[in-house]
Amino acid sequence: MNIMEFEKELKAHFLKGHEVYLRHISIDCVIFGFHENELKVLLLKAKYAGKWALPGGFVLKEEYLNDAAKRILHERTGLEKIYLQQFYTFGDPARSTKKINQGFLKNIGTSATKSWMFERFISVGYSALVDFTKVQPVADLFSEGCEWFNIHEIPEMILDHREILKKALENLQLQLNFQPVGYNLLPLKFTMPELQKLYETILDRKLDRRNFQRKMMSTGILKKLKETKKGVAHKAPFYYKLDLSKYKKALKAGMGFEL
Amino acid sequence: MNIMEFEKELKAHFLKGHEVYLRHISIDCVIFGFHENELKVLLLKAKYAGKWALPGGFVLKEEYLNDAAKRILHERTGLEKIYLQQFYTFGDPARSTKKINQGFLKNIGTSATKSWMFERFISVGYSALVDFTKVQPVADLFSEGCEWFNIHEIPEMILDHREILKKALENLQLQLNFQPVGYNLLPLKFTMPELQKLYETILDRKLDRRNFQRKMMSTGILKKLKETKKGVAHKAPFYYKLDLSKYKKALKAGMGFEL
Repeated sequence: MNIMEFEKELKAHFLKGHEVYLRHISIDCVIFGFHENELKVLLLKAKYAGKWALPGGFVLKEEYLNDAAKRILHERTGLEKIYLQQFYTFGDPARSTKKINQGFLKNIGTSATKSWMFERFISVGYSALVDFTKVQPVADLFSEGCEWFNIHEIPEMILDHREILKKALENLQLQLNFQPVGYNLLPLKFTMPELQKLYETILDRKLDRRNFQRKMMSTGILKKLKETKKGVAHKAPFYYKLDLSKYKKALKAGMGFEL
Repeated sequence: MNIMEFEKELKAHFLKGHEVYLRHISIDCVIFGFHENELKVLLLKAKYAGKWALPGGFVLKEEYLNDAAKRILHERTGLEKIYLQQFYTFGDPARSTKKINQGFLKNIGTSATKSWMFERFISVGYSALVDFTKVQPVADLFSEGCEWFNIHEIPEMILDHREILKKALENLQLQLNFQPVGYNLLPLKFTMPELQKLYETILDRKLDRRNFQRKMMSTGILKKLKETKKGVAHKAPFYYKLDLSKYKKALKAGMGFEL
């Protein structure tokens, strides 16, 4: 698609998008990426806007909200088969997209002052946590970049996307209290220090080693193996693996405060 | 307001409501009520529909979503100063209100076939937990009844309201794993059996007494008093009270799986 075709498409979205999408409702996806000691988030750089944004989009008139989230993430980043969870719906009337969208229209050379895109949007937030070394996101036609940013080095973002990201992170941290973390982030077997590092990275603070081990074992979702990790300077740490049936049960019922 | 005035108002809502409210977005409130050994939920009986419904409504064009939830609950039931929390946003396209709303219109004698009320609605669910002996809900003009129903004796409900209620209850039960229950449900001082009963009623299952006491004390939000309960046949149980500063901290940070 060349630049003229792209601008034509963008203009059509502003002027006729309301014929296919529900008005007033958008979806924003916060995709966290973890690997070793790092937590990142996936952002797109919007063409023209010059700022970064969460991958987002709109809901088709007859589409399930959860299906829309999957489709949008796929269309905008190429990612699929990602377990997305709703975490919050953002409804501040001042999160209006009017100003930024008027800038858009001016840039592509139309004087339209009326568009469904200038109206108020309530945005449903979805989030996921993946291993960022295992996925290859790509920018869509509306973006000039698609990158992972370390959670401590977030660039300037459009609208209230920083606030949406903050809420998603708080929710992820709270979730560690009562749901096991995704087994897709851990190798088949892992040591207790590796697991602790995962928790510390997400919670962004140091944890007490003994306390962590005791709490983790009390959840019942870990199996200690007889094998130890080779090539470690000091005392070789044991490997653990997840007990998948207990893990699935804990995902469903919660686990932190099992009564 | 007499019946003719009411029907006029209802008709105006169908034909002109979209001038004041956002299209496609509604709010439904699940108000749980607890007292002693009983968990209830507050329902309204819609005039004409002959079925019960969650107190719900629509969002004004320039209104915060959270403010809309408070206003709607107040307008529909008279309740105020209730701590409402978002729990999920329902976006199944088949939850359409078309059929039931066409029935409404027919009943009030208009042949209008077009109304914003026939369009698809995505509903944001809010919930709260109160002591049902401490509030006096009253039905609004659109309802012919406003009653507390035991959670095990829910009548037939409109649309997907039973599903919304189910999700709210699951969320409340999951929340017990990582957040302390509302201190507004407990007397200033209470015994461990009374606290256990609260948990058992919400979780709808029996809990092990010793295990419960151990877990509860480990959260750090309870203070044991020197006073025991009088007039009890067997061994007099001690009173406890909530440590409010720790309680507030736990509300914010989560507590079940404190690391």
